[in-house]
Amino acid sequence: MKSVNASIITIGDELLIGQTIDTNSAFIAQELNKIGIWVLHRVAIGDVWDEIWNALDEERRRSEVIIITGGLGPTADDITKPLLCKYFGGKLVLNEKVLDHVKYLFEKVYRRPGALLEMNRKQAEVPDVCEVLFNKRGTAPGMLFRSHSHISGIDATRDRDSVFISLPGVPSEMKGLMTEEVIPRLKKSFELPAIVHKTFFTAGRGESAIADHIKDWEASLPSNIRLAYLPGFGMVKLRMTIRGDKKEDLEKHLAPYSEKLEELIKDILVAEEDIPIQVVIGRILKEKNKTMATAESCTGGYIAHLITTVPGSSKYYKGTVVSYANEVKENMLGVKHETLISAGAVSEDTVLQMVKGVIGKLDVDYAVATSGIMGPDGGSEEKPVGTVWIAVGNKQRSEAKQFSFRFERERNIEQTAIAALDMLRKFILADSQSL
Amino acid sequence: MKSVNASIITIGDELLIGQTIDTNSAFIAQELNKIGIWVLHRVAIGDVWDEIWNALDEERRRSEVIIITGGLGPTADDITKPLLCKYFGGKLVLNEKVLDHVKYLFEKVYRRPGALLEMNRKQAEVPDVCEVLFNKRGTAPGMLFRSHSHISGIDATRDRDSVFISLPGVPSEMKGLMTEEVIPRLKKSFELPAIVHKTFFTAGRGESAIADHIKDWEASLPSNIRLAYLPGFGMVKLRMTIRGDKKEDLEKHLAPYSEKLEELIKDILVAEEDIPIQVVIGRILKEKNKTMATAESCTGGYIAHLITTVPGSSKYYKGTVVSYANEVKENMLGVKHETLISAGAVSEDTVLQMVKGVIGKLDVDYAVATSGIMGPDGGSEEKPVGTVWIAVGNKQRSEAKQFSFRFERERNIEQTAIAALDMLRKFILADSQSL
Repeated sequence: MKSVNASIITIGDELLIGQTIDTNSAFIAQELNKIGIWVLHRVAIGDVWDEIWNALDEERRRSEVIIITGGLGPTADDITKPLLCKYFGGKLVLNEKVLDHVKYLFEKVYRRPGALLEMNRKQAEVPDVCEVLFNKRGTAPGMLFRSHSHISGIDATRDRDSVFISLPGVPSEMKGLMTEEVIPRLKKSFELPAIVHKTFFTAGRGESAIADHIKDWEASLPSNIRLAYLPGFGMVKLRMTIRGDKKEDLEKHLAPYSEKLEELIKDILVAEEDIPIQVVIGRILKEKNKTMATAESCTGGYIAHLITTVPGSSKYYKGTVVSYANEVKENMLGVKHETLISAGAVSEDTVLQMVKGVIGKLDVDYAVATSGIMGPDGGSEEKPVGTVWIAVGNKQRSEAKQFSFRFERERNIEQTAIAALDMLRKFILADSQSL
Repeated sequence: MKSVNASIITIGDELLIGQTIDTNSAFIAQELNKIGIWVLHRVAIGDVWDEIWNALDEERRRSEVIIITGGLGPTADDITKPLLCKYFGGKLVLNEKVLDHVKYLFEKVYRRPGALLEMNRKQAEVPDVCEVLFNKRGTAPGMLFRSHSHISGIDATRDRDSVFISLPGVPSEMKGLMTEEVIPRLKKSFELPAIVHKTFFTAGRGESAIADHIKDWEASLPSNIRLAYLPGFGMVKLRMTIRGDKKEDLEKHLAPYSEKLEELIKDILVAEEDIPIQVVIGRILKEKNKTMATAESCTGGYIAHLITTVPGSSKYYKGTVVSYANEVKENMLGVKHETLISAGAVSEDTVLQMVKGVIGKLDVDYAVATSGIMGPDGGSEEKPVGTVWIAVGNKQRSEAKQFSFRFERERNIEQTAIAALDMLRKFILADSQSL
């Protein structure tokens, strides 16, 4: 079996000038990977005719699947659709189904029927040489082109044709089209290899220390199993990958190695799959039918945000008090005035009282509290920027721990949030074992 | 004056498999842009020797500046350093200054002197043909190479050499090296053109509607002024760009066009520069010496998080109550039980009472409150997913507005947060004008 390779081309000056972060490529790569298509190359180029044309020529030499995002908006700086039309030798024709949908969106969803403009109407025009991928979430349809030898001599050097797919750059529209329209078509178009990944999500130890700890195991891996270290804020993901013909065989081949790894890292293992720590906590709480709350100072609501991005979190998450001001710590959480004066807002006593306060006020089973100095200002000799206290507890007992993060503000906030969630996870697990 | 072009090469399987979102490229592009270097091409490739080698060959044909990120970690899957060493014909030598720094980090900052491993020591080895860019934030140094004609025949086809810069992939380390080490060296190495951008940050109207409203103005733009629409969640940035020799001349040339645009969009203008709305609100509150709080249900702390990412926000932001559960709305914010029963949690009355409650409890000048159904579950015929109520107010009065967002959960949260911040911004501005 041959492997099928893909290239991703993202179009738009906003990517080159750095005004937009490309989140689409990661999603596309994940989806392709799941069905055994390997992304070889990702490239970002501007809204420039020749550069887009050259990128199409270059990537079709490299890959069987070429996914193009962006450049399909209604405004004048988007040139992708006419270019694709010319590249594949077609002409633009009005697609009635797409036009009806554009009209429907303006009348029923955006509720501004009068706002339907000539430029929106133009979005219903598609090249007559493409298969239209209907976009129910927006006005710009996706388009699928199959290269044919009459278009240019390039494909003559290859033993099969390439598939080109053009998608709008709006993430929700792109995502819907990828999962509902693109993936099913690719599965039909290619005989695909199997890929098996096994990801271990760890927290609390650095990349080098883990690598040293597992070095003998890593050296024992056969050459067809790849290991990657994916470090993030306060955590490291270890991902094993194997490719081949049959999924069952690959899983069987991988199993002894992944079981051994799991044993080696059991102290720092958060999850045996690639899921965020807030999802892990949500699963535990739902399983045990328990509730939680947070009391945040330095993380400013970021922990609450992470928890509430999880669908269904209202089942176990009651809320947070973000007490950025000291008086809020006193009035809303019951932290003692004397404690704030003597020990300070960033102290063991304060976070312990915050946890106790929020558990009582919100009547929950578990809570976590944070207080620290995130920078760039506010540090002192005794408590430099990055000094953080975190407490976790239940109705009976609580515990606190000090951390030092020496990064810039945003990273300090993220590190603190992950450390707090991991402390909470461990506390809940230990608590339920002791019952 | 010739223009100087750049390419960005990001290395790492994690980018191709989609497990990591590339935020580094946007930052690098912004920094290069500020000094008049245009990013022509961005490419992401795996940890594969031949692909990295080929990318270096390809991009040096295209650009004078080649920035490489990633692939410098201490573990075995990183091959970039030995490759660069070979590519530029050098050998690896131990750099004492870097080694001292690695030791210092392990002893004083990480506080785990025993954890210094052979693989960390290896990070202090650098090719003898590069200029070392000292990385005070981490263990992997940056490296700068200048291509010379003896290395390969490629540069013979160009009239000047290229500069290659290799940076670690950890964002905080990469950012520090870019601003402190790379940018000053590039300024010295090249005679750079001037670039002037003018960005208008708007909220409350879509890309097509804005484009239609300003179409005559857009048609009047001379060819050397480029306009880009950069749509985001609930807002659109309009960016004008002009390049040339002298910054003053460019600014003078751009001024009449940007003034006219500002006049055309004054109803939806949030800021005349590319800054987030939370920064705009922070400036207004600091200037007026006022305070604020938030009461969040459906946004789950995300508004608080946005506000507290701004350094110095503790000056004007007192905190939030995230009332995910109805009882928290009652107990902590004083929303009436009858209201929650009769009108429901997602209703005009509830958000008005939330605003009133949080202003009283946290004793602030202004507040904003949100309640809605973010999905995927929880919707009904009467209140479908995406139904949101937002209220803003001060101690005297408040007002509420209903929104319908029809996206997936995360986007609904972001849209609601931006809409809430924009309502608050307008309320504060109107309030201070009426005084």
